Amino acid sequence: MAQPATPVSPPLKDELDIVIPTIRNLDFLEMWRPFFQPYHLIIVQDGDPTKTIRVPDGFDYELYNRNDVNRILGPKASCISFKDSACRCFGFLVSKKKYIFTIDDDCFVAKDPSGKEINALAQHIHNLLKPSTPLFFNTLYDPFREGADFVRGYPFSFREGVPTAISHGLWLNIPDYDAPTQLVKPLERNTRYVDAVMTIPKGTLFPMCGMNLGFNRELIGPAMYFGLMGDGQPIGRYDDMWAGWCAKVICDHLNLGVKTGLPYIWHSKASNPFVNLKKEYKGIYWQEDIIPFFQSVVLSKECTTVQKCYIELSKMVKEKLGPVDPYFQKLGDAMVTWIEAWEELNPLPQAAAAAEPSGVKKNEPSPKSK
Amino acid sequence: MAQPATPVSPPLKDELDIVIPTIRNLDFLEMWRPFFQPYHLIIVQDGDPTKTIRVPDGFDYELYNRNDVNRILGPKASCISFKDSACRCFGFLVSKKKYIFTIDDDCFVAKDPSGKEINALAQHIHNLLKPSTPLFFNTLYDPFREGADFVRGYPFSFREGVPTAISHGLWLNIPDYDAPTQLVKPLERNTRYVDAVMTIPKGTLFPMCGMNLGFNRELIGPAMYFGLMGDGQPIGRYDDMWAGWCAKVICDHLNLGVKTGLPYIWHSKASNPFVNLKKEYKGIYWQEDIIPFFQSVVLSKECTTVQKCYIELSKMVKEKLGPVDPYFQKLGDAMVTWIEAWEELNPLPQAAAAAEPSGVKKNEPSPKSK
Repeated sequence: MAQPATPVSPPLKDELDIVIPTIRNLDFLEMWRPFFQPYHLIIVQDGDPTKTIRVPDGFDYELYNRNDVNRILGPKASCISFKDSACRCFGFLVSKKKYIFTIDDDCFVAKDPSGKEINALAQHIHNLLKPSTPLFFNTLYDPFREGADFVRGYPFSFREGVPTAISHGLWLNIPDYDAPTQLVKPLERNTRYVDAVMTIPKGTLFPMCGMNLGFNRELIGPAMYFGLMGDGQPIGRYDDMWAGWCAKVICDHLNLGVKTGLPYIWHSKASNPFVNLKKEYKGIYWQEDIIPFFQSVVLSKECTTVQKCYIELSKMVKEKLGPVDPYFQKLGDAMVTWIEAWEELNPLPQAAAAAEPSGVKKNEPSPKSK
Repeated sequence: MAQPATPVSPPLKDELDIVIPTIRNLDFLEMWRPFFQPYHLIIVQDGDPTKTIRVPDGFDYELYNRNDVNRILGPKASCISFKDSACRCFGFLVSKKKYIFTIDDDCFVAKDPSGKEINALAQHIHNLLKPSTPLFFNTLYDPFREGADFVRGYPFSFREGVPTAISHGLWLNIPDYDAPTQLVKPLERNTRYVDAVMTIPKGTLFPMCGMNLGFNRELIGPAMYFGLMGDGQPIGRYDDMWAGWCAKVICDHLNLGVKTGLPYIWHSKASNPFVNLKKEYKGIYWQEDIIPFFQSVVLSKECTTVQKCYIELSKMVKEKLGPVDPYFQKLGDAMVTWIEAWEELNPLPQAAAAAEPSGVKKNEPSPKSK
């Protein structure tokens, strides 16, 4: 006898927030409706707080503008960037969920080679729920994927893997190039669909792009700080890179995994390379000091939590990168402020219970829930 | 006016040897004829030397059996395995070319997703002639490939890359699984064509399979020793793994690159998992000591050539792995013998000139050239 159809609940429906930084109406959500509608959205409105951002009907969301950021964080609001998509990390701070998916508002649903629309969120969830394998490279890529496994010569004691903290997705159409590459190759488009997910090995840094990114907030949230960028700062477009370098050295220290590859989104519009060059140029040469710095970071064994790792890292940033430019002194201070804000809004369970009457409650920061 | 067609010479035609270890007639070459025929083959006949191996007409080859190995190497022949595909490294030793492609005789031409036959050799050559990027992960994979580049956040000073020493290709149909995985998943087939080539990051080990492998013999040849396996040895099926671990730590030390991914070949036949288990079982538990050993190897700065690295590594093997099993004492000695044989057959240019009258000449070791 046929069974009656059981409605399938979307995976992690009550455990995941979608964070979107924006300055415009969110019409792009129409295309994502079949995939995003069951989930809660946290919209971080960048720029002019008096502007009204229109959100398509039927989405469950809370929206924060700069006035909300200032009201909720008080003096600590200084650590949240203004007029830069780096403001997205405010959404990570106020979320109370275990998982975050963050996406830019110029990213649309891509199609796989068979023409099927890609549910990027479902793939990120899959990546985050399966272990990572940072200790040894598997030549057939993700060994936990259907039809694949660990190959001959892969040590058996490594096959359990480690918990996955970050799932980094990619982009079809407009590739995520820096300004010089955009200028040199204005017409280059990414048309290659690489059907793979892989773990970035321990000890290896990567350029983390914030356009299409999932992570486990409980495991790595406090490291997902997007730095000081945009208005009043000497640099832009390094927000996600900064978060990626910090998060990767902390994941390596805490034995957590970072995956990259699927899912793809369709990145619709190249940003202006001349504007980008102005934002990036200091980053382009600072980076030549930043990368050797991160490649040499060794966190002490006292760093048993992400917060402790991040505070220790902030001290190293001030000490080792401060001489490169005073900006890094300011950034190191902001990293500490960020952790203070994180701990205030995300008290530990026992601290939370004690602080409950006067503490920040789950829905309190939300000013404009629909 | 139309130009007359200019015949295109196959790439590296006079700089590359194809090395094939075998115990049977090489009918599999028929399928590879359009791709391999312009190249020179070195066939290493394993097992009974009185057996005649048939090679299809029209191929340019030299063939060595065990009697040839013994005659050419004398007492040093002890370092070449017998009744095991590890004997293939004898072909690397006697080649005088800059590049090697080695393939198993149960590997056939695969098709890409469009149905086109894959010229595996051409892809390996492409991989070997373009730089590798082991110092930082590029999320769009090989940045030197048509339609791809380095992404935003990739340090500019790393973009030159490093010379590529090894190109590790993959397999459609029968995946390269160990005996336990073969036993558990007897029907699993690899049907996923992942359209990517990537550099294995510095400091990361990988399981190198010898089935479909290219390398630059000048850059890494002396490290491509396939160990003591098969007849009279307590272990099999770890020959290529051993070579891969040694070669990878040496590439990392000498700033050379290792790529994996494309090209795919079609692996036709699963080997017997029960026989494999017997060959592998010691390797499966020894490996739990071998991998931490290789992960901790630091070569001294005096090791400026592959030979010097390999000799230093052989001492470490005896010292650190000798206590695991006496086999590793024997293997450490064989590693030294291998380097002695390499230097005898591959004298340095000035030494070669001095030794010319009595030394091994280019074509001398070849007993049965066609």
